[in-house]
Amino acid sequence: MAPQDDNVDAVEEAMVAEVEKKPIATIVIIIAMQTEALPLVNKFQLIEDHDSVFPKGVPWVRYHGTYKDLFINIIWPGKDAVLGVDSVGTVSASLVTYASIQALQPDLIINAGTAGGFKAKGANIGDVVMVSDVAFHDRRIPIPVFDQYGIGARRTFSTPKLVKELDLKVGKLSTGDSLDMSPQDEAAINANDATVKDMEGAAVAYVADLLSVPAIFIKAVTDIVDGDKPTAEEFLQNLVAVTAALDQAVTKAVDFISGKCLSEL
Amino acid sequence: MAPQDDNVDAVEEAMVAEVEKKPIATIVIIIAMQTEALPLVNKFQLIEDHDSVFPKGVPWVRYHGTYKDLFINIIWPGKDAVLGVDSVGTVSASLVTYASIQALQPDLIINAGTAGGFKAKGANIGDVVMVSDVAFHDRRIPIPVFDQYGIGARRTFSTPKLVKELDLKVGKLSTGDSLDMSPQDEAAINANDATVKDMEGAAVAYVADLLSVPAIFIKAVTDIVDGDKPTAEEFLQNLVAVTAALDQAVTKAVDFISGKCLSEL
Repeated sequence: MAPQDDNVDAVEEAMVAEVEKKPIATIVIIIAMQTEALPLVNKFQLIEDHDSVFPKGVPWVRYHGTYKDLFINIIWPGKDAVLGVDSVGTVSASLVTYASIQALQPDLIINAGTAGGFKAKGANIGDVVMVSDVAFHDRRIPIPVFDQYGIGARRTFSTPKLVKELDLKVGKLSTGDSLDMSPQDEAAINANDATVKDMEGAAVAYVADLLSVPAIFIKAVTDIVDGDKPTAEEFLQNLVAVTAALDQAVTKAVDFISGKCLSEL
Repeated sequence: MAPQDDNVDAVEEAMVAEVEKKPIATIVIIIAMQTEALPLVNKFQLIEDHDSVFPKGVPWVRYHGTYKDLFINIIWPGKDAVLGVDSVGTVSASLVTYASIQALQPDLIINAGTAGGFKAKGANIGDVVMVSDVAFHDRRIPIPVFDQYGIGARRTFSTPKLVKELDLKVGKLSTGDSLDMSPQDEAAINANDATVKDMEGAAVAYVADLLSVPAIFIKAVTDIVDGDKPTAEEFLQNLVAVTAALDQAVTKAVDFISGKCLSEL
C-alpha cells in the first residue's frame, strides 16, 4: 500500500468533521426479511420504488419516503427469483449495501434485523441490542494475517446518546451464513465475545466501511442459541412478536436521529 | 412472484439467441489473489487502470487491454486496506463481480483461481478443472426452501467445445469462506458432490446469474483436502507452481474464445 500523505489526511479529517456537523438527511435501512421490513414500511408510510435504482434482474426492493426531516430508504434484498424465499445472508447483504450507497449516497446506514442471542452474555428473547462491534465467525483462514481478515472485526459507528435515549443493551455481534451453529462457529463466536449472532451484520459493516459510510446495527433476539430449543423452531415461533419490538426500537431511533447530525448521536 | 408473460419470454429468448451469435467482445476475468493474477496480466500485456471504474475507497484493481479480438479485464479484489492481504472470499468476490458487470457489461465472466481438490473424486495437485456446477457448503439454513437457497446450487455456462479443446477435467465446485474444512463443511461438500473447493466461485456464479451474464470457472488444485498434509501448508507450498498451470489453461481458454460467439464455446 502507498504511504499516506499527511496533508491529504488532514484535509480528509476536516471534511469528515464538516460532514458530522451537517444534519443527517438520507438514511438507508437494510433489512434482510420482508416480515421484518413491512411493519416499518407502513409505520414510515414509505412507498415501493417502481422505477428501480437497482439494475434489471436483481430482486432487491426499495421503499422510500420522507419522514420528519429524513429521506428514508428501506432496502430489502427481496425474494430469490427461483426459490421465493428472502435473500438472506452475507452475499446479498453486501450487494444491497454497496448498490444502495452507490445509488443513494446515504449519510447513515441502519442494519436492523432479528438475531440469535446468548444467555451466557445476558441476552433474552425480545431484547433489542445496539451493536458495538461486528465480526465473522465462519471465515476461518489459518494463515497469519489472513486469519484476521477472515474474522473481519470492526467497531461500528458510535452512538452513545442514541443508546442512552433508547435505553438499549449494547453488545457485540457475530455474523455467519448459517442459521445453526457448528462447534467451530461456537468457538469463533466465543472468541468474538458476541452477545448476538446474525447472518448479515459484519458484511454490511465491511461494505459501509469500504465506502466510508457510518453504519449502526440494531438487532432483536428471536432465539437463545445457547438454550434448549432448536434455533429454527424458536426463530420461527418468535419472529413476528420480536419483530414488533425491533420495529419499535428502529422507529424510536429514527425519531431521535431526525434533525440531528452524526456527531449528536 | 408474478406469473411470466409468454410473449415476453419469447422475445427474451430471441434476444438471448441473438447475443449468443455475436462474437464475444468483452471478458472479465475475476481472480482473488495477486499471485494468481499477475502472470496473466503480463501474458496479456494488460495495464493497470489509473482512473478507476470503481468507487473511491475500494481496493479493487482492474488490469485491461486488447488481446487478439478481445477486450480483456482482469479484476483482482486487491489488498485489504488495513491488513494488506488479498481480499479473498465470497463477500469481496460478489462485490467485484457486481461492480465489474455494472461498469464493463462483459459478454462473459471467467472466474479463475486455485482450489482444494478431493482425491476421492480423482483430483491431483496441479489439475485444472472446468467447473460444471457450483454450490455453497457453509450456508446451513435448516428451514424448508431456505436450505436450498443457502446451498445455492447452480449450473455454470456450458462450454463443451472449450472443455474438449483444452482437454480439461470437468467437476463440481463447492464454495465456502474458510480455507480449512469443518466436519459440517465436509458433509455439505460431499452432498454437493464436489471435486474442488474454493472460496469465491459460487458467489461469482450467483451474481453473474442475477445479472444474466454467462460465467465459467477454471480452478487449479493446490492442495488435496482429503489427503495427509495440512491445507494451509500445502496451499502455500504449491501456490506458485500450480498458478503456472492455471495461467496456461486460462491463456488457452482465452485464445479459444477469441473470435467466437457464446454458442461456439
